[in-house]
Amino acid sequence: MRRRHEIESCHDPGQHSLRLVCRRARPENTILDVNGVRIGGGEITVMAGPCSVESEEQLISIARAVKASGAKVLRGGAFKPRTSPYSFRGLEVEGLKLLALARQETGLAVVTEIMDPRQLDLICRYADILQIGSRNMQNYSLLEEVGRCRKPVLLKRGMSSTIEELLFAAEYVMKGGNSSVMFCERGIRTFETSSRNTMDLNAVPMLKRISHLPVIVDPSHGTGHWWMVPPLSKAAIAAGADGLLVEVHCDPQKALSDGPQTLRPDRFDQMMRELRRVALAIGAELPLPERPQP
Amino acid sequence: MRRRHEIESCHDPGQHSLRLVCRRARPENTILDVNGVRIGGGEITVMAGPCSVESEEQLISIARAVKASGAKVLRGGAFKPRTSPYSFRGLEVEGLKLLALARQETGLAVVTEIMDPRQLDLICRYADILQIGSRNMQNYSLLEEVGRCRKPVLLKRGMSSTIEELLFAAEYVMKGGNSSVMFCERGIRTFETSSRNTMDLNAVPMLKRISHLPVIVDPSHGTGHWWMVPPLSKAAIAAGADGLLVEVHCDPQKALSDGPQTLRPDRFDQMMRELRRVALAIGAELPLPERPQP
Amino acid sequence: MRRRHEIESCHDPGQHSLRLVCRRARPENTILDVNGVRIGGGEITVMAGPCSVESEEQLISIARAVKASGAKVLRGGAFKPRTSPYSFRGLEVEGLKLLALARQETGLAVVTEIMDPRQLDLICRYADILQIGSRNMQNYSLLEEVGRCRKPVLLKRGMSSTIEELLFAAEYVMKGGNSSVMFCERGIRTFETSSRNTMDLNAVPMLKRISHLPVIVDPSHGTGHWWMVPPLSKAAIAAGADGLLVEVHCDPQKALSDGPQTLRPDRFDQMMRELRRVALAIGAELPLPERPQP
Amino acid sequence: MRRRHEIESCHDPGQHSLRLVCRRARPENTILDVNGVRIGGGEITVMAGPCSVESEEQLISIARAVKASGAKVLRGGAFKPRTSPYSFRGLEVEGLKLLALARQETGLAVVTEIMDPRQLDLICRYADILQIGSRNMQNYSLLEEVGRCRKPVLLKRGMSSTIEELLFAAEYVMKGGNSSVMFCERGIRTFETSSRNTMDLNAVPMLKRISHLPVIVDPSHGTGHWWMVPPLSKAAIAAGADGLLVEVHCDPQKALSDGPQTLRPDRFDQMMRELRRVALAIGAELPLPERPQP
Repeated sequence: MRRRHEIESCHDPGQHSLRLVCRRARPENTILDVNGVRIGGGEITVMAGPCSVESEEQLISIARAVKASGAKVLRGGAFKPRTSPYSFRGLEVEGLKLLALARQETGLAVVTEIMDPRQLDLICRYADILQIGSRNMQNYSLLEEVGRCRKPVLLKRGMSSTIEELLFAAEYVMKGGNSSVMFCERGIRTFETSSRNTMDLNAVPMLKRISHLPVIVDPSHGTGHWWMVPPLSKAAIAAGADGLLVEVHCDPQKALSDGPQTLRPDRFDQMMRELRRVALAIGAELPLPERPQP
Repeated sequence: MRRRHEIESCHDPGQHSLRLVCRRARPENTILDVNGVRIGGGEITVMAGPCSVESEEQLISIARAVKASGAKVLRGGAFKPRTSPYSFRGLEVEGLKLLALARQETGLAVVTEIMDPRQLDLICRYADILQIGSRNMQNYSLLEEVGRCRKPVLLKRGMSSTIEELLFAAEYVMKGGNSSVMFCERGIRTFETSSRNTMDLNAVPMLKRISHLPVIVDPSHGTGHWWMVPPLSKAAIAAGADGLLVEVHCDPQKALSDGPQTLRPDRFDQMMRELRRVALAIGAELPLPERPQP
Repeated sequence: MRRRHEIESCHDPGQHSLRLVCRRARPENTILDVNGVRIGGGEITVMAGPCSVESEEQLISIARAVKASGAKVLRGGAFKPRTSPYSFRGLEVEGLKLLALARQETGLAVVTEIMDPRQLDLICRYADILQIGSRNMQNYSLLEEVGRCRKPVLLKRGMSSTIEELLFAAEYVMKGGNSSVMFCERGIRTFETSSRNTMDLNAVPMLKRISHLPVIVDPSHGTGHWWMVPPLSKAAIAAGADGLLVEVHCDPQKALSDGPQTLRPDRFDQMMRELRRVALAIGAELPLPERPQP
Repeated sequence: MRRRHEIESCHDPGQHSLRLVCRRARPENTILDVNGVRIGGGEITVMAGPCSVESEEQLISIARAVKASGAKVLRGGAFKPRTSPYSFRGLEVEGLKLLALARQETGLAVVTEIMDPRQLDLICRYADILQIGSRNMQNYSLLEEVGRCRKPVLLKRGMSSTIEELLFAAEYVMKGGNSSVMFCERGIRTFETSSRNTMDLNAVPMLKRISHLPVIVDPSHGTGHWWMVPPLSKAAIAAGADGLLVEVHCDPQKALSDGPQTLRPDRFDQMMRELRRVALAIGAELPLPERPQP
């Protein structure tokens, strides 16, 4: 009366098993190296930045702020998937160029979303990490395309995808030859309506148990409320996440997208200080920001 | 505490409204013409065939059978999206050629899935209707690509997509210039596990009220059990659906995919007879099959 | 990784099987006799009336109207479960007395909700069918209490209960000695927000296959919109339901509860005429109303 | 097209507002005193014990173990709500007596479930905290009954109840005159099947923001896997929970219920040590166990 639970096949030698993503294939944790930032090796990696790249001034000021608080990766959308075709859909190539400029200015690595297999070369020219968005988690053409390149992939869980389906999506990428994959739990769709999504932190220990790949948590999309981001970020680290993806904007009320779930830099900085203590409490580390050169 | 309900904006002149898909834009029903088959105009259109195209013999025999029972469109997957990269993923181009052959043999129109924007020319060469699968309902690159062609599009609801998101996905296609879109309700993902998905027949009157586009129902995916397909097909027509998409195979137990939800031709034929009576009862019509020429 | 699927145990001789509710225990359909109304035997039984009993005039006028259209059972809440303790919670005993009066005036049988095991004697004095509401489907004290009496029980599915849990709730009642149970599918809670609940018509053939007990469908709660009630009522009958539970009020906009999902008598009458044709089309019958005596 | 979001009415003076449970009614946190244990005042309260009371030996040995690790309250079911009427349903009155005995032996306060309004006097004779189980969160007769007594109430969220419904359930209890209520988030029902429920930690900051009442988290039911209990317990505390409800058994594999989600005492002890560090990191405290008297 019910489909066989394929997640169990992780431990089976059968045809449909999760051959590459599961711990049977690789017992130790995979540690990804992104321009010197090591993800999955005990240090918590914080990726922060605006939902959408809006302008040079906006992006550079946010990039400097999040770096000063200890973020290692800059997030920012250049091509934006939007429910309505009439919403702001990103600066596109111009946005990619600004991300590269911000990397040059700050030394932060850059993560941005790829939405179309035909964009692979373009995005790879500017990004250090390719983000597969929730809506594309089962866009197999896109998964196979990023499987052909060597850039690390941040694979966001579909908003109603099971953990098993997320594992198989990573298997698509790895089967193509790209073993630099990290999962991103970003909240799932449930009956509850007081938060934008329901953060599924059960997914963190479940993914860590089944797979050797790093697990990132996105509390901005997972909650939809900026004031929930600090407690859920602490919770994610306490649950064993390897990193966070957080939306930060200098003026969230004027942000072109996702304002209500976006932190101001001062609140982000306060949160980072608190996260550092939680990380230590569980035996992990969230490194201090580098001292600016005099 | 909750996002504004954009579905209401259908009646608003605002920026994010459903400009093209809603009845404000076009009060009367849209009727699509596919090689002479009229969809959405009071006649129930049944699309039937195997989940996957497997061989010439398999496809032709099913095509003849479903035509003899009154189906007007042949369904069949050539490129198959599968959760696991190790599952059977279709005969690909060879499958498209067999679909075209089956059309030539039977006169049935052909609907098949497109998964990648780069496939547009290829699929258009063989198919009469382009199917956007559930996993790709928010693959905006793909939606915009099919918006550029003139083939009718069967847009399947994502398995956890709201009706509002489905309407906006159709808006993406229509905004590109292609106004030949039909919706397909195929079951949604819920907590219930005794059926593969939960058929959401509320969606039928809701979509018909908001939009002028035809609504097709897929009871095979919506239930996951072949013995549920006849009662839910009757229910779909009674609820006001313009057509059905049904999986049929001469030997479901040997089907390479979706066997448990697939009808044998004899059961499909029996169902079609029963559907004809339900259609009449609600003032619609499911035409008799053409008499074969002597 | 997943609980054993107990619904399958219906066919097992194990300890946890559904001993009394499943077809193994009784292959033929159970037909309930409620004051001469036979439920589950091929005739469609329509139960209709207001959400809440509000006054004598309101109730009697609705009762006469629904009887004239062919309803056989009068529904009406005297004790109302409400999310907020400050909402209108029913006329209580006064409401029960009005229901008994309406029965005397019209000959309709009466179904009303029991919310507390201590109310059993009271409710039994006035009602012909005891309704267990969705919120109480797993209130085991209440289930056992109604299991001790001999009144038929209308057991509404919890808004997030699986079909398996619904079957086990009926097992609680039958284990107590009361074998007059009918199921009521009334919509489940999902992520979709455009309708109040998601009507799960898959439940109809599933329950009919596993169990010998009648299945009633409540399209008023299942949709939340009065204009959806007729198409979903037709769909329920086409799917094989044994009856319907429908909210009717002479002035829905003034109803003290559930107005938006309530039909006016003229629309209910029109619907009943259409339902009669659908019932015939699937080989069932929805009897004509008795001619009033001259 | 959508019900008004009543949770917002918390800040409204309207008829349906959450008059007593929300912070408008009482800005400062409510601190409950249970036999000297203060809940909600900055110290983390851990409630631990078996799912079901099984025997004197079982209960006393678990009670001593959890006390030695720092738990302040003993949990244990005497009356068990079970999906199947044929499952073990608790020792009933005998179980209550054993709980009282364990309290006498260890000094721990006792929390146990009440399932029937007629049990109020009985349960109050033995328990220090009355638990309302998930299945009864909207059993309004029961809520009103516990509202009439003065024992603290642990109100578990229904497995598919919204946060708003949970708040209104507490309002029912407080309206009756009992203001000693604490919430318990215990996982919600979603499409995900790899864990028993989906722990909703978004609920913690949401409830703390809207209401002044304490929030307890149950990671045993929230995950269904014993090895997930420690990471999710840490996460709950990091998110701001006031306490935990944890299943512990000396031999989980022989437990009469919930074995797979139950910790052994040694693992519980290890977890408590780790929780103490997380509590300190967020500025709370999980007190050390009292030194046994020499």
